[in-house]
Amino acid sequence: MKPLEGIRILDFTQFFSGPVCTLLLSDFGAEVIKLENPPAGDATRYGKFIENGNSTHFATRNRGKKSVAINMKDPAQKELFLKLVKTADAVVENFKPGTMEKFGVTYDVLKEINPKIVFTRISGYGQSGPYSNRSAYDTTVQAESGVMSITGPQDGGPTASGASIADYCGGLVGCIGTLIGIVEAQRTGHGREVDASMMDALVLLQENRLSTYLKNGIVPKPNGNRYPAASPIGDFMCGDGIPVMINVSTDKQFQSFAEVFEQPQWLENPHFASMSLRAENYLEVEAEVKRVFGALTSDEVTSRMQSRKLVYGKINNYETLVKHPQIEYRQTFVNAVWPDGTTFKVPGNPLHMSDLEREMDYTTVPLGTNTLEVLSEVADEAYVKELMGPVLEAVAEHQKKALGK
Amino acid sequence: MKPLEGIRILDFTQFFSGPVCTLLLSDFGAEVIKLENPPAGDATRYGKFIENGNSTHFATRNRGKKSVAINMKDPAQKELFLKLVKTADAVVENFKPGTMEKFGVTYDVLKEINPKIVFTRISGYGQSGPYSNRSAYDTTVQAESGVMSITGPQDGGPTASGASIADYCGGLVGCIGTLIGIVEAQRTGHGREVDASMMDALVLLQENRLSTYLKNGIVPKPNGNRYPAASPIGDFMCGDGIPVMINVSTDKQFQSFAEVFEQPQWLENPHFASMSLRAENYLEVEAEVKRVFGALTSDEVTSRMQSRKLVYGKINNYETLVKHPQIEYRQTFVNAVWPDGTTFKVPGNPLHMSDLEREMDYTTVPLGTNTLEVLSEVADEAYVKELMGPVLEAVAEHQKKALGK
Repeated sequence: MKPLEGIRILDFTQFFSGPVCTLLLSDFGAEVIKLENPPAGDATRYGKFIENGNSTHFATRNRGKKSVAINMKDPAQKELFLKLVKTADAVVENFKPGTMEKFGVTYDVLKEINPKIVFTRISGYGQSGPYSNRSAYDTTVQAESGVMSITGPQDGGPTASGASIADYCGGLVGCIGTLIGIVEAQRTGHGREVDASMMDALVLLQENRLSTYLKNGIVPKPNGNRYPAASPIGDFMCGDGIPVMINVSTDKQFQSFAEVFEQPQWLENPHFASMSLRAENYLEVEAEVKRVFGALTSDEVTSRMQSRKLVYGKINNYETLVKHPQIEYRQTFVNAVWPDGTTFKVPGNPLHMSDLEREMDYTTVPLGTNTLEVLSEVADEAYVKELMGPVLEAVAEHQKKALGK
Repeated sequence: MKPLEGIRILDFTQFFSGPVCTLLLSDFGAEVIKLENPPAGDATRYGKFIENGNSTHFATRNRGKKSVAINMKDPAQKELFLKLVKTADAVVENFKPGTMEKFGVTYDVLKEINPKIVFTRISGYGQSGPYSNRSAYDTTVQAESGVMSITGPQDGGPTASGASIADYCGGLVGCIGTLIGIVEAQRTGHGREVDASMMDALVLLQENRLSTYLKNGIVPKPNGNRYPAASPIGDFMCGDGIPVMINVSTDKQFQSFAEVFEQPQWLENPHFASMSLRAENYLEVEAEVKRVFGALTSDEVTSRMQSRKLVYGKINNYETLVKHPQIEYRQTFVNAVWPDGTTFKVPGNPLHMSDLEREMDYTTVPLGTNTLEVLSEVADEAYVKELMGPVLEAVAEHQKKALGK
């Protein structure tokens, strides 16, 4: 049995932050019912890559979930949603704050129907405050949160992460809130409204840098691949033109580092005598490392580092990453399989658990696939067919036009 | 009542990835007992900033937790730990894989004592596989995971995030695994061993980029603040020298964008006719945006964007971030207060919940503070005092030397 079997999530999410939250629940057995606004549904269904009318962007985040087309502006359809709330453990959404309210859905409405419901809301800036109703995308929250201001080459401009860290961290934090709410509801019978924001998630990410700034008042700038508290930390070019990322922090590590690269004079240099002194004199430290690494191949550097259990990393690009021995061993990539057989290889769940075999094949479904089946649980089947028939026709029509299906 | 009141976590974590996992549980009422190896304990106790012998690095991640000094290599002390396992819901650790095994602690040992225990292990590369026993720090996993290879200025080298995204995402994922295990244990009486890795967490972060690469075989490179699927996305300099980060993706947004900046010819330009065309012709799109923004102040740009609910962000540095109206309103920063009164302002929990007032003041405790109180729960008080007395003396001695206390 999977750990979350029997848990039901009603999932209004779209794009990335919300879907990754419910994906992690789905992967462990929760039944995630994605509720999509007809006729288009989640906009990422139309993002590239489209193969046979199926999007890989959509599949990465929504594999394993059910899909119900439902128009919350239609009172009869909304009524069915409210009946579903009785059967669910959580409702998760990542609309712009205020959208659910426009549908007449608030935590008070939901808990009246089901006191144990957890109502998780993921947004750019949170459900309250002057920025609450601002539109927010990953990169704009990276900008607002300050994380761009500490990322990038030395003397370069603020740089966004090439990966969607605001969406992802916001989604993970939303998932944590949802699970905390479920743990409590199991014990007390009462849920919570959970308000997760991408902004708050990125502020906590920067905890040590921010608390340091609040003490010393020095506004940090992008500083390449260094880390301010120690040196040498960063990428250093080896003689074969391949850089290696290293992190030599503690005194013990620095001693091993000097020994394994046969530089005893480093241990006599008063500028290198402690972690904070090396951090202060990082340019001198780095010049020395460049000199030594430049005379060795990257293989020589890494095997010496490894022999003393020093900390280093190869800077993989996507070509070397997907062949990474650890990724292959851990079966990090899994298959998102559409009913027509189209298969996308996508990153799988980042957690392994005991007594749970790694699942390799997930089904990803077209918009509205589970509409009749799910809604017929809470209303007469003939009524559901009559109500939803035209909706599903409009969905089919839209899919044909937009995806050539 | 806080949602996780009554949940007890035995916390062997140190540095950042593990402590942030248990911090999120502690913030919501779980009793987190930090188990630290005497006489030094968590190495971050000695990181800057030290004020009155108290470290802000330590305080940001460990506020609100208890501290017990315990030497797991001593059989009598280990025995007390095993007795504590009976009282706990989860054991969390982020040692290098194999370390807990050296103490004789495995999931089999723990579940024999307490079948409902969740044993969460956070590591760089996971508990299995060829890289399992490699030392890993945040930046080296950023390198191995491929995320550096897509971050940085166009034509620049691979760039690490200035924030510890590998540690943070690994910790959040570990927290999700812990909570999933607790949800299950509450229902079935049986826990799990949870294996979270920073590497796997960063691979899932890059889901869309990676699944795209696996389809088109084009190895992505750093590309500044752009996002490949749409344009204009990125930072654009305004006439007053202040850049604004914008994200104009959908056709509807692009139309509003052209209208609000009075550039009707953009809507006639066949190169700009769809999201994928604008992505293809991004240099042409960007040149146009530069021209228009260059003639306006940043305030003019943002107020026009806001008037049409377009998505933009100010690129805050730490000085502007800590005064950010949303941060102030949401009380994002809280106080970590040491018993001697030393107070550090630190990022607080990124989740808000209904019926739960924002907690503003947390206590952070010196190493070993709760040793006698906690261990006396599971053994005779006089015995605990005799056993732990010398340990606590060694701790006090070490603190005096290392921190001048």
